[in-house]
Amino acid sequence: SSLVNKPKIKINNLEPRNEVWGINYPREYETYMETKSMDFRSKYNGSAMIDMLDEYPALVILWAGYKFSQDYNQARGHYYAVEDIRNTLRTGAPMNGKHSPMPNTCWTCKSPDVPRKMKEIGIAEFYSGHWEERGSDIINPIGCADCHDENTMKLKITRPALIEAFERQGKDITKATHQEMRTLVCAQCHVEYYFNSDKPKKGVPYLTFPWDNGTTAEEIEEYFDDINFKDYTHQLSKAPIIKAQHPGYETYTKSIHYQRGVSCADCHMPYKSEGGVKFTDHKIQSPLNNIANSCQVCHRESEEDILKSVYNNMDRVLHNRGKLEEILVKTHLEAEFAWKQGATEEQMKDVLLDIRHAQWRWDYAAAAHGAAFHAPVEILRVVGTGIEIAQEARMKIRSVLTELGYTKEIPIPDVSTKEKAQKYIGVDLPKLRAEKKLFLDTVVPKWLDEAEKRESKMPQYDQAVNAEPKSKEKEQTASMLNK
Amino acid sequence: SSLVNKPKIKINNLEPRNEVWGINYPREYETYMETKSMDFRSKYNGSAMIDMLDEYPALVILWAGYKFSQDYNQARGHYYAVEDIRNTLRTGAPMNGKHSPMPNTCWTCKSPDVPRKMKEIGIAEFYSGHWEERGSDIINPIGCADCHDENTMKLKITRPALIEAFERQGKDITKATHQEMRTLVCAQCHVEYYFNSDKPKKGVPYLTFPWDNGTTAEEIEEYFDDINFKDYTHQLSKAPIIKAQHPGYETYTKSIHYQRGVSCADCHMPYKSEGGVKFTDHKIQSPLNNIANSCQVCHRESEEDILKSVYNNMDRVLHNRGKLEEILVKTHLEAEFAWKQGATEEQMKDVLLDIRHAQWRWDYAAAAHGAAFHAPVEILRVVGTGIEIAQEARMKIRSVLTELGYTKEIPIPDVSTKEKAQKYIGVDLPKLRAEKKLFLDTVVPKWLDEAEKRESKMPQYDQAVNAEPKSKEKEQTASMLNK
Ligand code: HEC
Ligand code: HEC
Ligand code: HEC
Ligand code: HEC
Ligand code: HEC
Ligand code: HEC
Ligand code: HEC
Ligand code: HEC
Ligand code: HEC
Ligand code: HEC
Ligand SMILES: [Ca+2]
Ligand SMILES: [Ca+2]
Repeated sequence: SSLVNKPKIKINNLEPRNEVWGINYPREYETYMETKSMDFRSKYNGSAMIDMLDEYPALVILWAGYKFSQDYNQARGHYYAVEDIRNTLRTGAPMNGKHSPMPNTCWTCKSPDVPRKMKEIGIAEFYSGHWEERGSDIINPIGCADCHDENTMKLKITRPALIEAFERQGKDITKATHQEMRTLVCAQCHVEYYFNSDKPKKGVPYLTFPWDNGTTAEEIEEYFDDINFKDYTHQLSKAPIIKAQHPGYETYTKSIHYQRGVSCADCHMPYKSEGGVKFTDHKIQSPLNNIANSCQVCHRESEEDILKSVYNNMDRVLHNRGKLEEILVKTHLEAEFAWKQGATEEQMKDVLLDIRHAQWRWDYAAAAHGAAFHAPVEILRVVGTGIEIAQEARMKIRSVLTELGYTKEIPIPDVSTKEKAQKYIGVDLPKLRAEKKLFLDTVVPKWLDEAEKRESKMPQYDQAVNAEPKSKEKEQTASMLNK
Repeated sequence: SSLVNKPKIKINNLEPRNEVWGINYPREYETYMETKSMDFRSKYNGSAMIDMLDEYPALVILWAGYKFSQDYNQARGHYYAVEDIRNTLRTGAPMNGKHSPMPNTCWTCKSPDVPRKMKEIGIAEFYSGHWEERGSDIINPIGCADCHDENTMKLKITRPALIEAFERQGKDITKATHQEMRTLVCAQCHVEYYFNSDKPKKGVPYLTFPWDNGTTAEEIEEYFDDINFKDYTHQLSKAPIIKAQHPGYETYTKSIHYQRGVSCADCHMPYKSEGGVKFTDHKIQSPLNNIANSCQVCHRESEEDILKSVYNNMDRVLHNRGKLEEILVKTHLEAEFAWKQGATEEQMKDVLLDIRHAQWRWDYAAAAHGAAFHAPVEILRVVGTGIEIAQEARMKIRSVLTELGYTKEIPIPDVSTKEKAQKYIGVDLPKLRAEKKLFLDTVVPKWLDEAEKRESKMPQYDQAVNAEPKSKEKEQTASMLNK
């Protein structure tokens, strides 16, 4: 009916405030706001906040020397994207002239204020500078302007990194079909990335997707090897590590569902009916909380049977991924031991390359929490090669030790809990937390005030129902800290 | 129509001659006879005869000390079952008082003469004695009486080993549904087995399925470890090896198709229409030669897309299985080297156990040629654990060598082709082949004559169309030898 479709207001270009879009599209907005819910926990994922370091203490060792070893949670809903990047210990506590260890590039996938700001100042300019500099600019969590054109409501790619990655592969993303777009809007963010400080602009940590050779673990690894890139040097083993970040799109495209033309939105944004109106459910979440509307559109089995087949795959993948995790912990600790015995750079060279490759493969398999379901066959393949390489590294460490005259068993410290592991690598959690609390109590409220002032100059609409004042957000942030 | 269904003749209980059943069921018989065809070759399988040792020379090393290292082919159609067990070098050339290295148990899965003979003399009695003793008794290749009751034509389990395995697990196979039977008739033969010479009758190599703990690789491994069973001692590494034989049923039951109730017959014996009559296609073969009638009943994609998704899975599985194969070759050769350096049993104990477990997992994944498609997730999981364990063994070998004062690289001989590998382990193929030829030229014709005489006393039917006289088979056997 024309009444439903007639927009109540004219939405401005790159309008970042979701509640404003909500005036025209209340159903999509309301379901979007449901990503606030934190009440679903599946066997491995869900909307609940899961402390991954607590759940998998091995991660602390694998990431020793990198901020992920301080704090890493399973993702919550899109609603929390901005809040969570402020909360994480990884962004530090930039105050009193001390910078955040992170650049502004980190904001890129957290908010529809990003395209707005990029348009205002330019892309490379957006990526420049320290993370805290855009604190009052990036305010609205992931939302409408990230995926939609405000005039046509068509799906739209708003992030330059994806467009550029396609271009470098000789592909034109504007030629994507409607069904492909239902995956590609997600591929703006749910992808492996790195910051290239050489290109296109020296000194700017430019957001780049490493897909020039392709998107398998091996192809991306080759890309990074060729440019000699590392995210960090491992604190214990000294290996030049590549951190994989949620290669959700890359791994999904190796799956049978992708081959059959199924899109991310088919499972994570199924259709919903309300009062006779069919619309897209914008409560993006684990589909296991909504099997009836997602899976059962295509699969006729009972919820119970569907769930069983999901876990049949995930359990098997996590079984081997867990083995690789354990092996990698040993490898880092054994390499550390070799250094302590006086190993030379020359002796350790091959070992470190193996550790780099094995850990990359593990992270490629682990970092996107859905991958164990999305592409179990490919993920198990990659994990298998990781196991081979990590064990190879351990063999070489033994040779090095033998050369050094050490032939006994290698002693391994107890790093079996988050606490023990963090203690071993010297993470002082209480201190980091106290600094973060101070930052959140003092700096963030100022950001919110400034933002409120800035946004008050944008077009205002009385009808912006359900809009939460920034002050409410303040309360909420405070309550999170007492968790 | 009643005309079609009215049987022309009364078939005797356990009638072994397929052409006799063919009088009543010409369509099923004719399609059964099409398993003679050898003209389809898919990427990895098909009805063509594939020399696996030539294709994968690593197998020669993995099976050193076991007859599989002399001769191993990819299966052909059911029509060839009896011919192939005579032809294979594994059964040797029993002549002039020299026994076959194999027991009569080997005949169990090759012919409908087996249930006939078992009824006549008893089960344990059937398994007793040397393979050549039943040469004139086991004549008709796998056929109707293996799977059907002659009165009702209902599917029927004719092999005691399957019934007994179910019983030991507390399951009653007579309670199986019709759809389950469409898988269980195949599970009479396409399963892992061993010969138990202790139970139920001392000294008789009794055909037994090792399923008492379950049918995963780990569960079967545990079963064999508990009873300290080995198929052979590896010629190079001295590891006590468990040979996996085609665990097709065991691996298939870990798949999504099985979870969804799909049976072996759904893919390998789809329905066929001829002159308005719908019947079961008895040309059991690779479904990739018949995608339209098998897969496309359930999947609506094009043949091309279906084939692509099959190979997407198989390629990934074979990638890692190939890696495990390579690692295992090294492991055996490195262990051999350690023995040569003077390693003791005590030093090698753990190494040998690891090799046993790693090779078992590889073989569990490889021996059923369909498994890479049937259950890619489970197979990759198993292969991954095999890689871990084999590499662990190699680490331990290095420790042993260090203890022995050897710290250099371990020299590895060139075993990269079937010829080189067989030469390395001392297989004299020309000699074995010459002996076999003599056996086939002299002994087998006698078997066929005796069989012809014996069968001439069975009820005869003029209508037994298409029946081939045994003399024709003789010609054929001869021609095979000149291949
Ligand atoms: C602008 C960046 C961006 C886009 C576009 C995006 N995501 Fe996300 N997504 C995120 C971030 C960031 C998080 C983590 C939020 C947090 O934990 O604070 C997330 C979290 C999620 C979660 C976890 C929710 C939960 O309950 O645990 C799912 C599922 C998800 N996204 C799916 C999708 C799908 C499907 C699409 C496309 C239809 C998509 N995302 C598009 C950035 C994005
Ligand atoms: C290319 C897009 C992209 C960039 C760039 C990016 N993120 Fe994210 N971020 C995501 C996605 C997608 C998720 C959800 C991942 C998941 O499913 O766990 C996420 C989740 C998070 C979370 C919540 C879960 C957690 O990890 O504890 C935090 C915090 C976070 N990111 C911080 C950062 C920081 C800091 C940076 C810069 C170093 C950054 N992000 C850069 C896309 C991105
Ligand atoms: C992460 C990506 C993403 C975000 C964020 C997002 N959408 Fe959507 N939206 C989609 C997808 C995918 C569809 C389905 C498009 C299709 O297939 O035509 C859709 C469809 C729609 C439609 C078309 C009608 C319907 O329901 O199918 C409207 C209107 C809409 N969204 C409004 C919004 C509003 C309002 C917001 C913010 C509150 C929003 N969207 C946020 C991805 C997104
Ligand atoms: C738009 C259609 C569609 C949706 C939605 C969908 N699937 Fe599928 N699914 C398929 C197709 C197509 C296949 C491939 C097999 C085939 O061709 O039938 C498949 C295969 C599978 C398989 C077997 C492959 C494997 O990886 O083991 C599982 C399990 C599965 N789906 C579960 C799910 C679950 C769980 C959901 C919801 C979260 C879901 N599917 C949503 C279409 C869909
Ligand atoms: C066929 C259905 C299907 C498709 C298509 C699909 N997913 Fe998923 N996704 C799932 C299932 C099922 C899970 C596992 C949820 C769980 O464990 O609770 C999942 C998990 C996730 C998670 C982690 C959720 C959490 O609770 O933290 C993210 C993020 C995600 N998917 C993003 C994507 C993206 C991005 C795409 C497209 C590139 C995509 N998915 C395509 C079904 C699907
Ligand atoms: C009585 C034992 C027995 C039974 C019952 C049996 N098979 Fe076989 N099958 C074999 C043997 C033995 C071979 C190998 C024949 C050869 O190569 O000489 C074989 C070969 C095959 C092949 C390979 C054919 C080719 O062209 O490469 C397929 C496929 C197959 N069987 C499927 C099945 C299916 C499906 C069932 C049940 C419907 C079944 N089998 C029942 C023993 C059996
Ligand atoms: C439990 C049933 C069973 C028993 C017992 C059995 N086989 Fe088989 N055999 C099969 C099946 C099933 C195949 C087809 C396997 C495949 O797909 O490769 C086969 C294939 C063969 C083949 C043709 C392919 C090849 O391996 O070269 C030969 C020869 C053979 N078996 C010989 C033997 C011998 C010798 C023994 C005794 C040691 C034996 N079989 C015991 C079931 C059995
Ligand atoms: C390896 C097992 C196997 C062998 C050998 C076998 N059959 Fe069958 N047969 C089946 C299966 C499975 C069906 C389908 C049964 C069902 O679902 O009702 C079947 C069905 C039939 C039917 C029922 C009508 C139809 O076509 O569906 C007839 C008649 C039949 N077979 C005759 C024969 C004859 C004659 C032979 C020997 C030439 C033979 N079968 C050999 C497994 C076998
Ligand atoms: C009797 C129905 C049926 C037949 C016949 C059938 N399938 Fe399937 N197939 C399914 C079902 C059910 C699933 C699970 C996904 C789902 O629920 O849609 C599936 C899943 C798959 C998948 C995805 C799972 C995986 O392992 O990657 C592939 C690929 C596939 N089938 C290929 C084939 C091929 C090839 C054939 C023929 C040789 C075939 N199927 C025959 C019903 C069937
Ligand atoms: C969903 C379809 C499907 C089901 C169900 C299925 N298979 Fe298969 N099978 C295949 C496909 C596809 C291949 C691969 C053929 C190829 O590579 O050419 C295969 C391969 C095989 C092979 C090797 C064929 C050759 O050419 O040598 C054997 C033997 C086999 N299957 C036996 C079985 C048995 C026994 C069962 C039940 C326990 C079973 N299959 C169930 C589809 C199926
Ligand atoms: Ca989550
Ligand atoms: Ca074959």
